[in-house]
Amino acid sequence: MMKFTKTEKIRFKHVDFAGIVFYPRFLEMLNDLVEDWFEEALDRPFSKMHHTNGIPTVDLKIQFKKAARIGETLTKQLWVKNLGGASVTCAFQFDDAHGKTCLEGEVTLVNVALNKDSSDIKAEPFSENTRQKISQFLIQKP
Amino acid sequence: MMKFTKTEKIRFKHVDFAGIVFYPRFLEMLNDLVEDWFEEALDRPFSKMHHTNGIPTVDLKIQFKKAARIGETLTKQLWVKNLGGASVTCAFQFDDAHGKTCLEGEVTLVNVALNKDSSDIKAEPFSENTRQKISQFLIQKP
Amino acid sequence: MMKFTKTEKIRFKHVDFAGIVFYPRFLEMLNDLVEDWFEEALDRPFSKMHHTNGIPTVDLKIQFKKAARIGETLTKQLWVKNLGGASVTCAFQFDDAHGKTCLEGEVTLVNVALNKDSSDIKAEPFSENTRQKISQFLIQKP
Amino acid sequence: MMKFTKTEKIRFKHVDFAGIVFYPRFLEMLNDLVEDWFEEALDRPFSKMHHTNGIPTVDLKIQFKKAARIGETLTKQLWVKNLGGASVTCAFQFDDAHGKTCLEGEVTLVNVALNKDSSDIKAEPFSENTRQKISQFLIQKP
Repeated sequence: MMKFTKTEKIRFKHVDFAGIVFYPRFLEMLNDLVEDWFEEALDRPFSKMHHTNGIPTVDLKIQFKKAARIGETLTKQLWVKNLGGASVTCAFQFDDAHGKTCLEGEVTLVNVALNKDSSDIKAEPFSENTRQKISQFLIQKP
Repeated sequence: MMKFTKTEKIRFKHVDFAGIVFYPRFLEMLNDLVEDWFEEALDRPFSKMHHTNGIPTVDLKIQFKKAARIGETLTKQLWVKNLGGASVTCAFQFDDAHGKTCLEGEVTLVNVALNKDSSDIKAEPFSENTRQKISQFLIQKP
Repeated sequence: MMKFTKTEKIRFKHVDFAGIVFYPRFLEMLNDLVEDWFEEALDRPFSKMHHTNGIPTVDLKIQFKKAARIGETLTKQLWVKNLGGASVTCAFQFDDAHGKTCLEGEVTLVNVALNKDSSDIKAEPFSENTRQKISQFLIQKP
Repeated sequence: MMKFTKTEKIRFKHVDFAGIVFYPRFLEMLNDLVEDWFEEALDRPFSKMHHTNGIPTVDLKIQFKKAARIGETLTKQLWVKNLGGASVTCAFQFDDAHGKTCLEGEVTLVNVALNKDSSDIKAEPFSENTRQKISQFLIQKP
């Protein structure tokens, strides 16, 4: 019943010619949020993942609702909508300082074994320990 | 009934620790595709847009189906699924050299007037000229 | 006689295929350091700069001495080597947790007025207030 | 006595709030130039480098002389100033369509063996074949 929460300040490098965040930079901020969640809440830091493992993103849906500008601090939240054997679907929401939502969406990650020398990516079930930690962030719709 | 098509080579800067494209880089490639479409097919180069206008992305859906690796050349295709007054929903698909789809999805853009000094973003209908050019890429489902 | 100091953690997005920081990402980290310095120490946040002003980088020298890897936290330091009328040359150094220097160098910034509609960039002297604040970070060679 | 030459168009993703190229993006363009040189002229594509080899940048000097704006096409040139046993120092220059230099500098690369599981990076002499190809781009000062 928890949401994982981080804040991030909009910087010069994030904004485009119009002075608003260039949307691929929002995806970097989302990846940072997932990275922090794995390290701080799931005890699986990306730095400790062997280079033949990973959690690639397989599905992504985002609605951009309000532009964000340099100097603003956004609150980034993530929680779990569905936990499968080797995959997890997370909901996320980035709000501005006034509580207005800048973007929201869902991202599905798959736990995999990677083979660097071929194109093979094979799904691999989460460990029981990881499943338990992920499920603490599971928020069911009523 | 046309699809707008470009190719892009996967480079060192695109790939992550696992040797596959880091997905926010795919969104940069998508933005490049939209930018090329506006310049080459719609006669509205981003460089000529006044800095108080733009076409921000408001909705994005992507399915990542196959990893792409450094050295591969992808074919990027874009066509129109829906054309509204001030918005356009485009479908896109990135295929590898063997015709396998790496990713596909839909992106909705809105034609806007931006106000740099406030948070105001106001939708503005496409010009008739632009509408006509966009509609050449409209591919209706059967 | 002060050095401006920040820390930054190496993230998934920073590293390349070899698992070490891709060097253009170090330049983003350097730009963040300069941005923080202007906001926190010089009272000139980038977000408050009018869009016709800026402090472009005109000269950059870097020596990369030690690779940095995902999970490491670097200490970033910046101080002033030379303060001209409209320009400032800063030295910088990024060290790892063991005090080993990953990179060091010098960057020269010029205070300018930008003209968006032309290619004109005109140097403009720092205000007396800004000069005074900058000079607190001036460290002369013995 | 050759210079390796490529062109690159300034895109939306390259420019900052002021409408000019954000300088870390210039370093990505430089890395692309080096990558193309290794693939097209030196017959050592980055995609074929084993993940325990690389050519990290150890020294970089750049002078930014003229801002570049969205829509401009730059000509990027690279040649060799010094060829050591395991290192090469290249000069580079990016010019606009009118022949005005936007930036110029020098970058030193070292041929190395990387060890992913430690911090070890060990210099390794270029092969004779690679040395010969590199030396075709060697331009001595008079």
